[in-house]
Amino acid sequence: QGSTEIYGRINLTAERQELNGAKDTGIYDNSSRIGIRGTEDLGGGLKAGFVIEHGFNADTGAAAGAMWGRESTVSLGGSFGTIRLGNMPASEGYFATADYVSMHNHDTGSSADALYGFVAIAGTLNSAIAYTSPTVNGLRFDLQYGLKENVKPDAPLSMAVNYDAGAMHLGLGYEEYDGQKSTALRGLWEMGAITVGGYYERGSGTVSYNNFRIAGMYTMGASEFHLNLGKRSGENGLADGDQFTVAYNYNLSKRTRVHVFYTNLDLANGAVDFSSYGVGLRHNF
Amino acid sequence: QGSTEIYGRINLTAERQELNGAKDTGIYDNSSRIGIRGTEDLGGGLKAGFVIEHGFNADTGAAAGAMWGRESTVSLGGSFGTIRLGNMPASEGYFATADYVSMHNHDTGSSADALYGFVAIAGTLNSAIAYTSPTVNGLRFDLQYGLKENVKPDAPLSMAVNYDAGAMHLGLGYEEYDGQKSTALRGLWEMGAITVGGYYERGSGTVSYNNFRIAGMYTMGASEFHLNLGKRSGENGLADGDQFTVAYNYNLSKRTRVHVFYTNLDLANGAVDFSSYGVGLRHNF
Amino acid sequence: QGSTEIYGRINLTAERQELNGAKDTGIYDNSSRIGIRGTEDLGGGLKAGFVIEHGFNADTGAAAGAMWGRESTVSLGGSFGTIRLGNMPASEGYFATADYVSMHNHDTGSSADALYGFVAIAGTLNSAIAYTSPTVNGLRFDLQYGLKENVKPDAPLSMAVNYDAGAMHLGLGYEEYDGQKSTALRGLWEMGAITVGGYYERGSGTVSYNNFRIAGMYTMGASEFHLNLGKRSGENGLADGDQFTVAYNYNLSKRTRVHVFYTNLDLANGAVDFSSYGVGLRHNF
Repeated sequence: QGSTEIYGRINLTAERQELNGAKDTGIYDNSSRIGIRGTEDLGGGLKAGFVIEHGFNADTGAAAGAMWGRESTVSLGGSFGTIRLGNMPASEGYFATADYVSMHNHDTGSSADALYGFVAIAGTLNSAIAYTSPTVNGLRFDLQYGLKENVKPDAPLSMAVNYDAGAMHLGLGYEEYDGQKSTALRGLWEMGAITVGGYYERGSGTVSYNNFRIAGMYTMGASEFHLNLGKRSGENGLADGDQFTVAYNYNLSKRTRVHVFYTNLDLANGAVDFSSYGVGLRHNF
Repeated sequence: QGSTEIYGRINLTAERQELNGAKDTGIYDNSSRIGIRGTEDLGGGLKAGFVIEHGFNADTGAAAGAMWGRESTVSLGGSFGTIRLGNMPASEGYFATADYVSMHNHDTGSSADALYGFVAIAGTLNSAIAYTSPTVNGLRFDLQYGLKENVKPDAPLSMAVNYDAGAMHLGLGYEEYDGQKSTALRGLWEMGAITVGGYYERGSGTVSYNNFRIAGMYTMGASEFHLNLGKRSGENGLADGDQFTVAYNYNLSKRTRVHVFYTNLDLANGAVDFSSYGVGLRHNF
Repeated sequence: QGSTEIYGRINLTAERQELNGAKDTGIYDNSSRIGIRGTEDLGGGLKAGFVIEHGFNADTGAAAGAMWGRESTVSLGGSFGTIRLGNMPASEGYFATADYVSMHNHDTGSSADALYGFVAIAGTLNSAIAYTSPTVNGLRFDLQYGLKENVKPDAPLSMAVNYDAGAMHLGLGYEEYDGQKSTALRGLWEMGAITVGGYYERGSGTVSYNNFRIAGMYTMGASEFHLNLGKRSGENGLADGDQFTVAYNYNLSKRTRVHVFYTNLDLANGAVDFSSYGVGLRHNF
């Protein structure tokens, strides 16, 4: 019926992990998912749409959280922008900043950004309403608001601005929930074979922190060489953190890729000392 | 393979609800669902088919009950009618009566019929067998029987007759389970822009009641104006009930609609006093 | 997008069962399932693919185990064979032997082989890696290895060889997990309207056993007449067992079939005495 389509991604890595001295070797999932989406042209520039997206662990076959925990929304769009209702994925503030620069593995799995402060976390942006502006001169604005509903301690809020101008891509993200705030600024530049991006995040509230990340990619034919570095300075007892990943991706096609990586995460003088060597296969469908 | 298709509906409403003085504002789900169905022409007038239908709460992304709790059946049809096996949705008795006249929002969400007595409730019509007759001169007969299986206290039974003659649509429903019975008669008339329907249900058993409902719709272009009134007189301690809903639906297309409503439910001298103002978006796919 | 397709099977039987004298009549599921799979041609003889398969009980609508408990894998194939990662279904050793000869109802439901020793059981072949060789002169080799991951007591292993030469089909299966082993040899011959197959399995470890099964099918037009006999001699306290099934299948099409059967299982002098008369409808999609 119309444009209904199935889409998804399976992303599995074989990894040799070490956490505080304990070693393990396994097959690990990297946010595998399947979704169904569709749009309907209503005429007069109006468009209706829906997305339901299910996350699962392809290593075990188990659902990851609620059945449609990654998204279940219905939307109405037009020249005024798009309004969405339902259960939202991670905040637009996150997508505009931390997610945007995590190029080597879509910010999933054991090398995902462990230092970004998810404030309006995925689980709270249910019963939510969102507005996405049209893109005007490269500029787009997003607003998400989750209803409190006598259930949550607070109503989560996230805002984002994305700006694209040729090779330059800027983003601003804001999240706020239950007394905790996160504001982040992101930049990414495409310079031929080289892409460099990064973000700075300021978190404040019960815990406060400054969080920096820089990521670079060098592309050569089907090969991508990645470097990703993050550093968080914690306050109010939040641990300092350091994270880095080096990765090599080989694109067998636009949809399918093999990759190898090494990632390392240190929190607070060894409270967490994690590292992993991985090799993986990612297939989009 | 053949005719397998995905179908479904997302229906969310933003509501201001009040229950016995306690107020809440939220985004609420109205029986959102996704299903997969298909048919196969076996030749000689025979047809095989299947339906699996999953209900979920689009506000949170959580499954609503069992994975295929709304239906999972396989069927074989021919000139003799159709036989279905499996897990059935709500009873045919319900579909022929209460569901049929609940035109303003498919009998879902906070304005759904709260007074109809679901006897052979959805959860019991599993491990069931159903027969649907062919439609002859506008007349169709349905029978559903759920096997007891050393698990249920009783074997649920539901029967329905549907009769269509031009503008007149009549239905008779019967449900029986574990000592409780429901018999209901429904009529609905289409008179140009005006549609008027209603049903009367007699329940008897552990609790007994008389239940009346009338519903009217006035259509003007893409607009629908709805009024829906229900009244139950309880016996054996079952609460009396009153329910009414006024609604305005605007059809953006056959599949997509925006709507506003006010609904009010009173049970037994204020034991339940519920009301809600809502605005919603429903998208079929 | 490309070749993504939905497939599945609903298989329900109405049965009169008797277990150790207790009788029950019901509608029972026979491993109903729905899956989504796809492949992508990567050029140069390479192919990527994925399978996610969900099992459910069509009699109740409930999921059978983990959401994608039947399989969730991604694969990469070429002239070297195929490598798969993820959550695997039952072992290749099982598919090459016990499953292969269970022709009357796909080794599902109450007449499924109750005597085969699942050693590398389905639930353990998660976080697994598998290799399937190309088929050369009718010969194919399979290897499955589940990672232990500081979670399982042992790493499950399964191997299989399949050999096809005209009317003759041979298979060898091996499974090993946590000190228990199973080795089985299977043969199946197609002789016109008659197909005869069987396997012998030797299990050893905590329990040991010899397990024999023979199955025959006589085909006449759309009709199939089946006989299936199994006998297990247990050691180390494992019960002896006898099982037999007679079945008649009528194929309405390649996808849809009705069938009747009688099955009987005896374990250890009446510790389990099970029998069932069934009639069913199976529809593949």
